[in-house]
Amino acid sequence: MSANFPSKLLEEAVNEFASLPGIGRKTAFRLVMHLLRRDSAEVRRFGETVMKLRDEVCYCSVCHGISDTPVCGICGSGSRDRSIICVVESVQDVMAVENTRQYRGLYHVLGGIISPVDGIGPSDLTINSLEERVREGGVEEIILALSTTMEGDTTNFYISKRLSGYDLRLTTLARGVAIGDVLEYTDEITLGQSIVNRQPFTTQQGRS
Amino acid sequence: MSANFPSKLLEEAVNEFASLPGIGRKTAFRLVMHLLRRDSAEVRRFGETVMKLRDEVCYCSVCHGISDTPVCGICGSGSRDRSIICVVESVQDVMAVENTRQYRGLYHVLGGIISPVDGIGPSDLTINSLEERVREGGVEEIILALSTTMEGDTTNFYISKRLSGYDLRLTTLARGVAIGDVLEYTDEITLGQSIVNRQPFTTQQGRS
Repeated sequence: MSANFPSKLLEEAVNEFASLPGIGRKTAFRLVMHLLRRDSAEVRRFGETVMKLRDEVCYCSVCHGISDTPVCGICGSGSRDRSIICVVESVQDVMAVENTRQYRGLYHVLGGIISPVDGIGPSDLTINSLEERVREGGVEEIILALSTTMEGDTTNFYISKRLSGYDLRLTTLARGVAIGDVLEYTDEITLGQSIVNRQPFTTQQGRS
Repeated sequence: MSANFPSKLLEEAVNEFASLPGIGRKTAFRLVMHLLRRDSAEVRRFGETVMKLRDEVCYCSVCHGISDTPVCGICGSGSRDRSIICVVESVQDVMAVENTRQYRGLYHVLGGIISPVDGIGPSDLTINSLEERVREGGVEEIILALSTTMEGDTTNFYISKRLSGYDLRLTTLARGVAIGDVLEYTDEITLGQSIVNRQPFTTQQGRS
Protein backbone atom coordinates (compact mmCIF):
# COMPACT_ATOMS: atom_id res chain seq x y z
CA MET A 1 0.00 0.00 0.00
CA SER A 2 2.30 2.72 -1.26
CA ALA A 3 -0.65 5.06 -1.87
CA ASN A 4 -2.13 7.89 -2.76
CA PHE A 5 -4.12 8.53 0.39
CA PRO A 6 -7.51 10.15 -0.29
CA SER A 7 -7.15 12.21 2.91
CA LYS A 8 -4.26 13.90 4.69
CA LEU A 9 -5.81 13.18 8.10
CA LEU A 10 -6.01 9.51 7.24
CA GLU A 11 -2.43 9.46 6.02
CA GLU A 12 -1.13 11.17 9.16
CA ALA A 13 -2.98 8.78 11.42
CA VAL A 14 -1.69 5.76 9.49
CA ASN A 15 1.85 7.15 9.70
CA GLU A 16 1.56 7.60 13.46
CA PHE A 17 0.40 4.04 14.04
CA ALA A 18 2.98 2.66 11.61
CA SER A 19 5.70 4.38 13.67
CA LEU A 20 4.98 1.99 16.55
CA PRO A 21 7.21 -1.08 16.80
CA GLY A 22 5.87 -4.21 15.13
CA ILE A 23 3.07 -2.35 13.33
CA GLY A 24 3.35 -2.20 9.57
CA ARG A 25 1.43 0.07 7.22
CA LYS A 26 -1.33 -2.44 6.47
CA THR A 27 -1.98 -3.06 10.16
CA ALA A 28 -1.81 0.69 10.86
CA PHE A 29 -4.43 1.27 8.17
CA ARG A 30 -6.67 -1.40 9.64
CA LEU A 31 -6.38 0.16 13.12
CA VAL A 32 -7.19 3.62 11.79
CA MET A 33 -10.23 2.34 9.88
CA HIS A 34 -11.35 0.65 13.09
CA LEU A 35 -11.03 3.92 15.01
CA LEU A 36 -13.09 5.69 12.33
CA ARG A 37 -15.92 3.25 12.93
CA ARG A 38 -15.81 3.76 16.70
CA ASP A 39 -17.72 6.35 18.73
CA SER A 40 -16.25 9.82 18.59
CA ALA A 41 -16.11 9.93 22.41
CA GLU A 42 -14.20 6.65 22.55
CA VAL A 43 -11.63 7.82 20.04
CA ARG A 44 -11.25 11.13 21.89
CA ARG A 45 -10.61 9.17 25.11
CA PHE A 46 -8.02 7.06 23.27
CA GLY A 47 -6.13 10.16 22.15
CA GLU A 48 -6.39 11.84 25.53
CA THR A 49 -5.17 8.74 27.36
CA VAL A 50 -2.10 8.57 25.17
CA MET A 51 -1.27 12.25 25.74
CA LYS A 52 -1.92 12.05 29.48
CA LEU A 53 0.22 8.93 29.76
CA ARG A 54 3.35 10.61 28.51
CA ASP A 55 2.81 13.94 30.26
CA GLU A 56 1.63 12.79 33.65
CA VAL A 57 3.28 9.46 34.34
CA CYS A 58 5.68 9.46 37.31
CA TYR A 59 8.66 7.31 38.11
CA CYS A 60 9.12 6.09 41.67
CA SER A 61 12.05 7.96 43.25
CA VAL A 62 13.15 4.81 45.08
CA CYS A 63 12.87 1.89 42.62
CA HIS A 64 12.44 3.91 39.36
CA GLY A 65 9.37 1.89 38.39
CA ILE A 66 6.35 3.57 36.84
CA SER A 67 4.00 5.01 39.43
CA ASP A 68 1.22 7.55 39.84
CA THR A 69 2.86 8.90 42.98
CA PRO A 70 6.43 10.03 43.81
CA VAL A 71 6.95 6.76 45.70
CA CYS A 72 5.29 3.65 44.22
CA GLY A 73 2.88 1.35 46.03
CA ILE A 74 5.45 -1.37 46.57
CA CYS A 75 8.24 0.90 47.88
CA GLY A 76 5.75 2.72 50.10
CA SER A 77 4.12 -0.44 51.44
CA GLY A 78 4.61 -1.35 55.11
CA SER A 79 4.10 -5.05 54.50
CA ARG A 80 7.01 -5.77 52.15
CA ASP A 81 10.34 -7.23 53.21
CA ARG A 82 12.68 -4.24 52.95
CA SER A 83 15.85 -6.33 53.30
CA ILE A 84 15.64 -7.83 49.80
CA ILE A 85 15.85 -5.95 46.51
CA CYS A 86 15.08 -7.68 43.23
CA VAL A 87 16.93 -5.96 40.37
CA VAL A 88 15.03 -6.07 37.06
CA GLU A 89 15.33 -4.43 33.65
CA SER A 90 11.85 -2.98 33.28
CA VAL A 91 8.43 -2.39 34.77
CA GLN A 92 7.14 -5.36 32.79
CA ASP A 93 9.53 -7.56 34.77
CA VAL A 94 8.25 -6.12 38.07
CA MET A 95 4.74 -7.07 37.00
CA ALA A 96 5.86 -10.53 35.89
CA VAL A 97 7.50 -11.23 39.27
CA GLU A 98 4.53 -9.73 41.15
CA ASN A 99 2.16 -12.01 39.28
CA THR A 100 3.96 -15.08 40.65
CA ARG A 101 2.91 -14.00 44.20
CA GLN A 102 6.16 -15.61 45.40
CA TYR A 103 8.09 -12.46 46.26
CA ARG A 104 7.46 -9.99 49.08
CA GLY A 105 10.59 -7.85 48.86
CA LEU A 106 11.30 -4.60 47.03
CA TYR A 107 12.41 -3.93 43.45
CA HIS A 108 14.93 -1.85 41.60
CA VAL A 109 14.22 -1.07 37.93
CA LEU A 110 17.45 -0.56 35.96
CA GLY A 111 15.69 0.91 32.95
CA GLY A 112 17.62 -1.34 30.60
CA ILE A 113 20.65 -3.55 30.45
CA ILE A 114 24.30 -2.90 29.62
CA SER A 115 24.60 -3.29 25.86
CA PRO A 116 27.59 -1.72 24.10
CA VAL A 117 26.03 -2.56 20.71
CA ASP A 118 23.04 -0.33 21.50
CA GLY A 119 25.26 2.28 23.16
CA ILE A 120 23.85 1.61 26.64
CA GLY A 121 26.48 1.85 29.36
CA PRO A 122 26.25 1.61 33.16
CA SER A 123 25.68 5.37 33.44
CA ASP A 124 22.45 5.09 31.41
CA LEU A 125 21.01 2.76 34.02
CA THR A 126 19.98 3.37 37.63
CA ILE A 127 22.98 1.52 39.07
CA ASN A 128 24.23 4.55 41.06
CA SER A 129 20.85 4.78 42.69
CA LEU A 130 20.98 1.06 43.52
CA GLU A 131 24.34 1.48 45.21
CA GLU A 132 22.89 4.46 47.11
CA ARG A 133 20.06 2.27 48.41
CA VAL A 134 22.56 -0.37 49.52
CA ARG A 135 24.77 2.25 51.17
CA GLU A 136 21.82 3.54 53.21
CA GLY A 137 21.79 0.12 54.88
CA GLY A 138 19.17 -2.46 55.76
CA VAL A 139 19.60 -4.43 52.54
CA GLU A 140 20.67 -8.04 53.11
CA GLU A 141 20.11 -9.58 49.71
CA ILE A 142 20.12 -8.43 46.09
CA ILE A 143 18.42 -10.75 43.60
CA LEU A 144 19.73 -10.20 40.07
CA ALA A 145 16.72 -11.03 37.90
CA LEU A 146 17.94 -9.98 34.46
CA SER A 147 17.65 -11.69 31.10
CA THR A 148 19.85 -14.78 30.75
CA THR A 149 21.64 -13.28 27.78
CA MET A 150 25.19 -12.05 27.28
CA GLU A 151 24.01 -8.50 28.09
CA GLY A 152 22.28 -9.74 31.23
CA ASP A 153 25.41 -11.59 32.33
CA THR A 154 27.55 -8.48 31.68
CA THR A 155 25.18 -6.34 33.72
CA ASN A 156 25.11 -8.91 36.54
CA PHE A 157 28.91 -8.93 36.56
CA TYR A 158 29.13 -5.14 36.60
CA ILE A 159 26.63 -4.82 39.46
CA SER A 160 28.38 -7.54 41.46
CA LYS A 161 31.67 -5.63 41.11
CA ARG A 162 30.05 -2.36 42.16
CA LEU A 163 28.47 -3.95 45.22
CA SER A 164 31.44 -6.15 46.19
CA GLY A 165 32.40 -3.81 49.07
CA TYR A 166 29.06 -4.21 50.86
CA ASP A 167 28.01 -6.96 53.22
CA LEU A 168 25.10 -8.57 51.39
CA ARG A 169 24.12 -11.71 49.55
CA LEU A 170 23.96 -11.54 45.76
CA THR A 171 21.69 -14.14 44.18
CA THR A 172 20.29 -14.81 40.72
CA LEU A 173 17.14 -16.56 39.57
CA ALA A 174 17.41 -20.35 39.52
CA ARG A 175 18.14 -21.60 36.03
CA GLY A 176 16.75 -24.92 34.96
CA VAL A 177 14.10 -26.72 32.99
CA ALA A 178 10.88 -24.68 32.78
CA ILE A 179 7.70 -26.28 34.05
CA GLY A 180 5.91 -27.89 31.10
CA ASP A 181 9.15 -28.23 29.12
CA VAL A 182 9.90 -31.39 27.19
CA LEU A 183 13.48 -32.50 27.97
CA GLU A 184 14.15 -33.46 24.38
CA TYR A 185 13.71 -29.82 23.29
CA THR A 186 15.48 -28.12 26.21
CA ASP A 187 18.76 -26.54 25.17
CA GLU A 188 21.85 -28.34 26.41
CA ILE A 189 23.25 -25.48 28.52
CA THR A 190 20.04 -25.15 30.50
CA LEU A 191 19.74 -28.91 30.84
CA GLY A 192 23.39 -29.17 31.91
CA GLN A 193 22.97 -26.47 34.56
CA SER A 194 19.80 -28.09 35.81
CA ILE A 195 21.66 -31.38 36.36
CA VAL A 196 24.57 -29.68 38.13
CA ASN A 197 22.16 -27.69 40.34
CA ARG A 198 19.72 -30.56 40.93
CA GLN A 199 17.42 -30.18 43.90
CA PRO A 200 16.04 -32.57 46.53
CA PHE A 201 12.77 -34.03 45.25
CA THR A 202 9.55 -32.92 46.91
CA THR A 203 5.98 -33.59 45.83
CA GLN A 204 5.39 -29.80 45.78
CA GLN A 205 7.94 -29.13 43.04
CA GLY A 206 6.97 -26.02 41.12
CA ARG A 207 3.54 -25.66 42.71
CA SER A 208 2.67 -23.30 45.51
CA MET B 1 -0.16 -10.47 32.31
CA SER B 2 -3.27 -10.23 34.44
CA ALA B 3 -1.65 -7.64 36.72
CA ASN B 4 -1.55 -5.45 39.20
CA PHE B 5 -0.55 -2.35 37.28
CA PRO B 6 1.76 -0.06 39.21
CA SER B 7 0.04 2.97 37.65
CA LYS B 8 -3.55 3.80 36.66
CA LEU B 9 -2.34 5.87 33.70
CA LEU B 10 -0.35 2.92 32.44
CA GLU B 11 -3.28 0.57 32.87
CA GLU B 12 -5.67 2.89 31.04
CA ALA B 13 -3.27 3.31 28.14
CA VAL B 14 -2.74 -0.46 27.89
CA ASN B 15 -6.51 -1.00 27.96
CA GLU B 16 -7.01 1.51 25.15
CA PHE B 17 -4.43 -0.14 22.90
CA ALA B 18 -5.70 -3.61 23.78
CA SER B 19 -9.17 -2.54 22.61
CA LEU B 20 -7.87 -2.29 19.04
CA PRO B 21 -8.45 -5.32 16.81
CA GLY B 22 -5.58 -7.82 16.69
CA ILE B 23 -3.71 -6.22 19.59
CA GLY B 24 -3.48 -8.31 22.74
CA ARG B 25 -2.48 -7.13 26.20
CA LYS B 26 1.19 -8.01 25.83
CA THR B 27 1.50 -6.12 22.57
CA ALA B 28 -0.48 -3.20 24.03
CA PHE B 29 1.95 -3.06 26.94
CA ARG B 30 4.92 -3.08 24.60
CA LEU B 31 3.44 -0.23 22.55
CA VAL B 32 2.73 1.83 25.66
CA MET B 33 6.26 1.30 26.98
CA HIS B 34 7.54 2.38 23.57
CA LEU B 35 5.47 5.59 23.73
CA LEU B 36 6.86 6.30 27.21
CA ARG B 37 10.37 6.23 25.78
CA ARG B 38 9.48 8.60 22.94
CA ASP B 39 9.66 12.39 22.97
CA SER B 40 6.80 14.08 24.77
CA ALA B 41 6.06 16.18 21.66
CA GLU B 42 5.87 13.08 19.48
CA VAL B 43 3.45 11.35 21.80
CA ARG B 44 1.32 14.48 22.01
CA ARG B 45 1.20 14.57 18.20
CA PHE B 46 0.16 10.92 18.18
CA GLY B 47 -2.74 11.60 20.54
CA GLU B 48 -3.80 14.74 18.69
CA THR B 49 -3.70 13.01 15.31
CA VAL B 50 -5.99 10.27 16.58
CA MET B 51 -8.49 12.78 18.00
CA LYS B 52 -8.39 14.97 14.89
CA LEU B 53 -8.86 11.96 12.64
CA ARG B 54 -12.19 11.02 14.13
CA ASP B 55 -13.51 14.55 14.57
CA GLU B 56 -12.45 16.15 11.32
CA VAL B 57 -12.47 13.44 8.69
CA CYS B 58 -15.02 13.98 5.87
CA TYR B 59 -16.76 11.55 3.60
CA CYS B 60 -17.13 12.42 -0.07
CA SER B 61 -20.79 13.25 -0.79
CA VAL B 62 -20.59 11.53 -4.18
CA CYS B 63 -18.65 8.28 -3.70
CA HIS B 64 -18.71 8.11 0.16
CA GLY B 65 -14.96 7.57 0.32
CA ILE B 66 -12.84 9.31 2.95
CA SER B 67 -11.81 12.79 1.93
CA ASP B 68 -10.59 16.07 3.38
CA THR B 69 -13.11 17.97 1.27
CA PRO B 70 -16.87 17.57 0.69
CA VAL B 71 -16.13 16.07 -2.73
CA CYS B 72 -13.04 13.86 -2.96
CA GLY B 73 -10.15 14.32 -5.36
CA ILE B 74 -11.25 11.51 -7.66
CA CYS B 75 -14.92 12.55 -7.91
CA GLY B 76 -13.89 16.18 -8.40
CA SER B 77 -11.24 15.44 -11.01
CA GLY B 78 -11.80 16.55 -14.60
CA SER B 79 -9.56 13.87 -16.04
CA ARG B 80 -11.43 10.75 -14.91
CA ASP B 81 -13.83 8.74 -17.06
CA ARG B 82 -17.22 9.63 -15.54
CA SER B 83 -19.08 6.90 -17.44
CA ILE B 84 -17.67 4.04 -15.33
CA ILE B 85 -18.26 3.49 -11.61
CA CYS B 86 -16.28 0.86 -9.73
CA VAL B 87 -18.27 -0.34 -6.69
CA VAL B 88 -16.07 -1.34 -3.73
CA GLU B 89 -16.57 -2.17 -0.06
CA SER B 90 -14.13 0.25 1.53
CA VAL B 91 -11.62 3.04 1.12
CA GLN B 92 -8.82 0.45 1.33
CA ASP B 93 -10.21 -1.10 -1.84
CA VAL B 94 -10.25 2.29 -3.62
CA MET B 95 -6.57 2.68 -2.74
CA ALA B 96 -5.82 -0.87 -3.86
CA VAL B 97 -7.43 -0.30 -7.27
CA GLU B 98 -5.80 3.15 -7.59
CA ASN B 99 -2.39 1.62 -6.93
CA THR B 100 -2.78 -0.63 -9.98
CA ARG B 101 -2.87 2.52 -12.19
CA GLN B 102 -5.17 0.54 -14.52
CA TYR B 103 -8.41 2.36 -13.81
CA ARG B 104 -9.42 5.91 -14.72
CA GLY B 105 -13.13 5.85 -13.83
CA LEU B 106 -14.96 6.82 -10.64
CA TYR B 107 -15.70 4.83 -7.47
CA HIS B 108 -18.59 4.13 -5.17
CA VAL B 109 -17.78 3.01 -1.62
CA LEU B 110 -20.55 0.81 -0.18
CA GLY B 111 -19.21 1.03 3.36
CA GLY B 112 -19.50 -2.72 3.83
CA ILE B 113 -21.14 -5.75 2.31
CA ILE B 114 -24.51 -7.42 2.84
CA SER B 115 -24.00 -9.87 5.70
CA PRO B 116 -27.08 -11.13 7.58
CA VAL B 117 -24.80 -12.83 10.16
CA ASP B 118 -23.32 -9.45 11.13
CA GLY B 119 -26.70 -7.74 10.86
CA ILE B 120 -25.70 -5.68 7.82
CA GLY B 121 -28.54 -5.24 5.33
CA PRO B 122 -28.81 -3.27 2.08
CA SER B 123 -30.09 -0.19 3.96
CA ASP B 124 -26.83 0.01 5.95
CA LEU B 125 -24.88 0.46 2.72
CA THR B 126 -24.81 3.31 0.21
CA ILE B 127 -26.80 1.41 -2.41
CA ASN B 128 -29.57 4.04 -2.60
CA SER B 129 -26.95 6.65 -3.34
CA LEU B 130 -25.47 4.42 -6.05
CA GLU B 131 -28.88 4.07 -7.72
CA GLU B 132 -29.26 7.87 -7.47
CA ARG B 133 -25.96 8.34 -9.33
CA VAL B 134 -27.11 5.92 -12.03
CA ARG B 135 -30.49 7.66 -12.32
CA GLU B 136 -28.81 11.01 -12.88
CA GLY B 137 -27.46 9.52 -16.11
CA GLY B 138 -24.12 9.41 -17.85
CA VAL B 139 -23.09 6.07 -16.32
CA GLU B 140 -22.48 3.37 -18.91
CA GLU B 141 -20.76 0.71 -16.84
CA ILE B 142 -20.77 -0.46 -13.23
CA ILE B 143 -17.84 -2.66 -12.18
CA LEU B 144 -18.73 -4.78 -9.15
CA ALA B 145 -15.38 -5.14 -7.36
CA LEU B 146 -16.43 -6.85 -4.11
CA SER B 147 -14.89 -9.75 -2.24
CA THR B 148 -15.31 -13.11 -3.94
CA THR B 149 -17.14 -14.50 -0.91
CA MET B 150 -20.73 -15.54 -0.33
CA GLU B 151 -21.46 -12.05 1.09
CA GLY B 152 -19.83 -10.42 -1.92
CA ASP B 153 -21.88 -12.57 -4.29
CA THR B 154 -25.08 -11.73 -2.37
CA THR B 155 -24.31 -8.01 -2.55
CA ASN B 156 -23.49 -8.28 -6.27
CA PHE B 157 -26.81 -10.03 -6.85
CA TYR B 158 -28.75 -7.43 -4.85
CA ILE B 159 -27.14 -4.53 -6.69
CA SER B 160 -27.71 -6.16 -10.08
CA LYS B 161 -31.42 -6.52 -9.22
CA ARG B 162 -31.65 -2.89 -8.09
CA LEU B 163 -30.01 -1.63 -11.27
CA SER B 164 -31.72 -4.03 -13.67
CA GLY B 165 -34.06 -1.29 -14.95
CA TYR B 166 -31.24 0.93 -16.16
CA ASP B 167 -29.43 0.79 -19.47
CA LEU B 168 -25.86 0.01 -18.40
CA ARG B 169 -23.27 -2.74 -18.45
CA LEU B 170 -22.66 -4.60 -15.19
CA THR B 171 -19.24 -6.23 -14.97
CA THR B 172 -17.19 -7.93 -12.25
CA LEU B 173 -13.47 -8.35 -11.80
CA ALA B 174 -11.95 -11.17 -13.84
CA ARG B 175 -11.52 -14.30 -11.73
CA GLY B 176 -8.61 -16.58 -12.43
CA VAL B 177 -5.21 -17.71 -11.39
CA ALA B 178 -3.28 -14.91 -9.64
CA ILE B 179 0.07 -13.89 -11.07
CA GLY B 180 2.76 -15.80 -9.22
CA ASP B 181 0.36 -18.59 -8.23
CA VAL B 182 1.42 -22.22 -8.42
CA LEU B 183 -1.30 -24.23 -10.19
CA GLU B 184 -0.96 -27.16 -7.80
CA TYR B 185 -2.10 -24.97 -4.89
CA THR B 186 -4.82 -23.01 -6.69
CA ASP B 187 -8.30 -23.95 -5.47
CA GLU B 188 -10.34 -25.98 -7.93
CA ILE B 189 -13.18 -23.45 -8.37
CA THR B 190 -10.77 -20.67 -9.36
CA LEU B 191 -8.84 -23.03 -11.62
CA GLY B 192 -12.07 -24.31 -13.16
CA GLN B 193 -13.32 -20.77 -13.88
CA SER B 194 -9.97 -19.79 -15.30
CA ILE B 195 -10.16 -22.67 -17.80
CA VAL B 196 -13.75 -21.86 -18.78
CA ASN B 197 -12.86 -18.17 -19.20
CA ARG B 198 -9.49 -18.77 -20.86
CA GLN B 199 -8.06 -15.83 -22.80
CA PRO B 200 -6.11 -15.49 -26.04
CA PHE B 201 -2.39 -15.73 -25.29
CA THR B 202 -0.33 -12.56 -25.60
CA THR B 203 3.26 -12.00 -24.56
CA GLN B 204 2.07 -9.09 -22.39
CA GLN B 205 -0.12 -11.29 -20.12
CA GLY B 206 -0.47 -9.69 -16.73
CA ARG B 207 2.13 -6.99 -17.27
CA SER B 208 1.46 -3.39 -18.24
